[in-house]
Amino acid sequence: MTNPSPTASNPFEANSGDDRVNTPVPSNNSLASLTALVANDLDAVNNLILERLSTDTPLIADVARHLLLAGGKRLRPMLTLLSARLCGYSGPHHIPLAATVEFIHAATLLHDDVVDGSELRRGKKAAHALWGNSASVLVGDYLFTQSFQLMLVAESLEVLRVLSNAAAVIAKGEVMQLDASHHLEISRDDYLRVIHAKTASLFAAAAEVGGIVAKAASKEVLALMRYGEALGMAFQLIDDVLDYTGGGQAFGKELGHDFAEGKMTLPLILAIQADPSHKEFWQRTIENQQQAEGDFAQAVQRITAVDGFTATRLLAERYINQAREALADLPANHYRDALADLCDFCLQRDF
Amino acid sequence: MTNPSPTASNPFEANSGDDRVNTPVPSNNSLASLTALVANDLDAVNNLILERLSTDTPLIADVARHLLLAGGKRLRPMLTLLSARLCGYSGPHHIPLAATVEFIHAATLLHDDVVDGSELRRGKKAAHALWGNSASVLVGDYLFTQSFQLMLVAESLEVLRVLSNAAAVIAKGEVMQLDASHHLEISRDDYLRVIHAKTASLFAAAAEVGGIVAKAASKEVLALMRYGEALGMAFQLIDDVLDYTGGGQAFGKELGHDFAEGKMTLPLILAIQADPSHKEFWQRTIENQQQAEGDFAQAVQRITAVDGFTATRLLAERYINQAREALADLPANHYRDALADLCDFCLQRDF
Repeated sequence: MTNPSPTASNPFEANSGDDRVNTPVPSNNSLASLTALVANDLDAVNNLILERLSTDTPLIADVARHLLLAGGKRLRPMLTLLSARLCGYSGPHHIPLAATVEFIHAATLLHDDVVDGSELRRGKKAAHALWGNSASVLVGDYLFTQSFQLMLVAESLEVLRVLSNAAAVIAKGEVMQLDASHHLEISRDDYLRVIHAKTASLFAAAAEVGGIVAKAASKEVLALMRYGEALGMAFQLIDDVLDYTGGGQAFGKELGHDFAEGKMTLPLILAIQADPSHKEFWQRTIENQQQAEGDFAQAVQRITAVDGFTATRLLAERYINQAREALADLPANHYRDALADLCDFCLQRDF
Repeated sequence: MTNPSPTASNPFEANSGDDRVNTPVPSNNSLASLTALVANDLDAVNNLILERLSTDTPLIADVARHLLLAGGKRLRPMLTLLSARLCGYSGPHHIPLAATVEFIHAATLLHDDVVDGSELRRGKKAAHALWGNSASVLVGDYLFTQSFQLMLVAESLEVLRVLSNAAAVIAKGEVMQLDASHHLEISRDDYLRVIHAKTASLFAAAAEVGGIVAKAASKEVLALMRYGEALGMAFQLIDDVLDYTGGGQAFGKELGHDFAEGKMTLPLILAIQADPSHKEFWQRTIENQQQAEGDFAQAVQRITAVDGFTATRLLAERYINQAREALADLPANHYRDALADLCDFCLQRDF
């Protein structure tokens, strides 16, 4: 998991973007049938999350519930549940592991919002906008520590290594992303390394631990890891397109958030590299963060002019193909079909 | 570890205050002889910390080195080292566990500084003042995740439970402290619960895992935990006195920082409760955070007038007595003597 190039054998993930929708979920939501397949498990995960947020410290309960109960796809925990079931697991430990994954993700979102200054998260005011940055930082820490307590339940050192490694890689990815902001010289490979770390690593770990807890053969565990990794890369690529082209506004996502933050995502990188004649525009808006009305529309126009969105979507499709290929090493059953459906969802989603 | 009252059998800790001194260490420093006793171990811990900070992400290395290499007492890792040696341990795992404890502490300090807005930390400009809040939040997360990776090295589920529980309790304590800020009605017991969570729990865990890794008898492990807990409570109580009365300024500590932040520490609580006639003063300065020149001096005078500092020091002494009593259940050797010396240090320190 060190070279995130799509030609290598490692695929990837997405988390800076909000992958949960605010209710109501659209009726054509292809996630519905997948969710139904592990409905009981998902209920158990949600109950465990609720239980863990029932503390005698109201601020923790308020902030964490605001985020975790905002209505979400629970995409990462679903990977753990489907992977465990796919490998025939019938024990109880996939539930706390799925909750672990969601807590890691939620903690990252809380800290991301502080870093980004986002006003909205999951269609609601972001926690830091309601309770302040301090509460978001400290409750994020609390969720991180809860995730570490939950992952102990399975009593598996291998599970602990995979999940704690993912958490470390995500943290590093977040710092890399911060470091890369506003730097026009960031390359496509730099970007792929960042999204591999901050997003694909958790998708990969979520799927992998499902296999480990089911004591699946190492070939199958590896296949799950590769599937999750590739799915995560595609997910983030699409996320970074949607941040410019929209579709998620009905669900409370802010359009142009990455542009406003000077985040170096692939559509932007492609536009900057393809047309040096507009360098002054990018220097002013991204490097120096001096943005005026109309700049975002102009950025969208310039990315479109060099087919930046199309190229990003094509790369996402290549990762999705890798994800599908990884599934071939796994037993054919309803759960594997569900993982295949998730591939479609990741490409087709507009929120 | 749920009732932090000094009459109960659980003593306690300190971390919001900076417990590291900037070099040079004063010549009468009673820590020197203790440090000498585990000098090789401490070197190994420092080398491991350095190694873990050698990443290809410069921002992580810069921010974390700035904090972790600022020159420090390494009090918490020393507890782990001394406890392990006290119980006859001769293996290698106390080193990564001591580093774990230091990483948890360092992560907390980075996030504390963001929450408090402190300008100084360990005699140097605080990281967030140099690199911004975002870097402090994200590098703090990175240190947290490093701590979780390091604690896996011992391959002991018991060690993992103790340390991950301590991290969770600290995180909760930090939120409790934030929640309590500016609230004049906070009681002595509320305060003791906060410092038990945010400080004593890590001192307790640091000592406890030293015993666990040495496979000490459960009675000895319990004694180490109680010792660390009581020492930590005393440490934080003294820290909260020093924040008003000073002594640490030569080492870069800010005087009056807790007052400026409206932090409800025991000296303040005692003054507020003992003399209701000054309620308006406390409402203005602590509840409404409207502070003017001369207010801090007036606060010090009012706490002194009701013997608030003396009472806080007396309570610290009671905890130190508990810490000494806990040592009676441990084998008598140089390492136990060192832990006893640490009791003196915690009471007598003026930095």
